[in-house]
Amino acid sequence: MKLIIAIIQDKDSNRLSSALVKENYRATKLASTGGFLRAGNTTFMIGVDDHQVDGVLNIIRNSCKVREQLVTPVTPMSGTTDSYLPLPVEVQVGGATVFVLPVDRFEHF
Amino acid sequence: MKLIIAIIQDKDSNRLSSALVKENYRATKLASTGGFLRAGNTTFMIGVDDHQVDGVLNIIRNSCKVREQLVTPVTPMSGTTDSYLPLPVEVQVGGATVFVLPVDRFEHF
Amino acid sequence: MKLIIAIIQDKDSNRLSSALVKENYRATKLASTGGFLRAGNTTFMIGVDDHQVDGVLNIIRNSCKVREQLVTPVTPMSGTTDSYLPLPVEVQVGGATVFVLPVDRFEHF
Ligand code: NI
Ligand code: NI
Ligand code: NI
Repeated sequence: MKLIIAIIQDKDSNRLSSALVKENYRATKLASTGGFLRAGNTTFMIGVDDHQVDGVLNIIRNSCKVREQLVTPVTPMSGTTDSYLPLPVEVQVGGATVFVLPVDRFEHF
Repeated sequence: MKLIIAIIQDKDSNRLSSALVKENYRATKLASTGGFLRAGNTTFMIGVDDHQVDGVLNIIRNSCKVREQLVTPVTPMSGTTDSYLPLPVEVQVGGATVFVLPVDRFEHF
Repeated sequence: MKLIIAIIQDKDSNRLSSALVKENYRATKLASTGGFLRAGNTTFMIGVDDHQVDGVLNIIRNSCKVREQLVTPVTPMSGTTDSYLPLPVEVQVGGATVFVLPVDRFEHF
């Protein structure tokens, strides 16, 4: 038995939840905020048998991997001329930090 | 030293808190949301000596065990006739998922 | 690899965050509420190499140690005479409860 603790970006939370449910894994989500760069993130706790660890890590990797995303900057709020057209820029989103913890005992009441 | 992580239903949270305080255990609560069925749940973290694990597991079992509860369905909001009387139905409430984690080191500043 | 879980008072949270960032440690914060005395507290999760544990524990001790603080009681809301001047009283603030957990595996996607 292992307890997987995965810290991911909020925007990947629904996709990861769905992917885990589809494979019959139960997860508990904790609201969390990041240290360095990440504003809003979510911490998943997933209890699994030892032989399921690699499968869950693959699900997390596929749902949350770092990728480039085109983001169109928000237009400045006022005082701008109509001739200004914001261009989409590439930003890096996603990513996951994952700890696999040993579990001495697991109970389900 | 062990760190007990218990995920329980919100509605059992106060009862579990009181039961732990009565036996002089300290707990920290984290707001959490469930994966599968559970809308709102609470995650308890409780640090205990090895010989206290069984005692705390008993407290959790007694405070949070799965049981049937009679729930009267909420009356539909409008457009119903007065002749409709909602009957109470049995639903399953409670339950706890508990991980007992080994602790390498414990400090209290 | 270790996962340090530190439960501290809300009022020490910003100071601890800054101290960790300055030393290049990443932390994830979880909103939490205390069992016994503590109203609002914050749970930090910090993943570190084994040889960094003592350094991080020192940062936590320095940022969050229990100390006396002079607090001026809030003046009663109404019906008081102007001759009443609340005197500052010493209260104990700060403190940290820290668990160092072994980590079987660490991944960063
Ligand atoms: Ni179950
Ligand atoms: Ni204490
Ligand atoms: Ni990174």
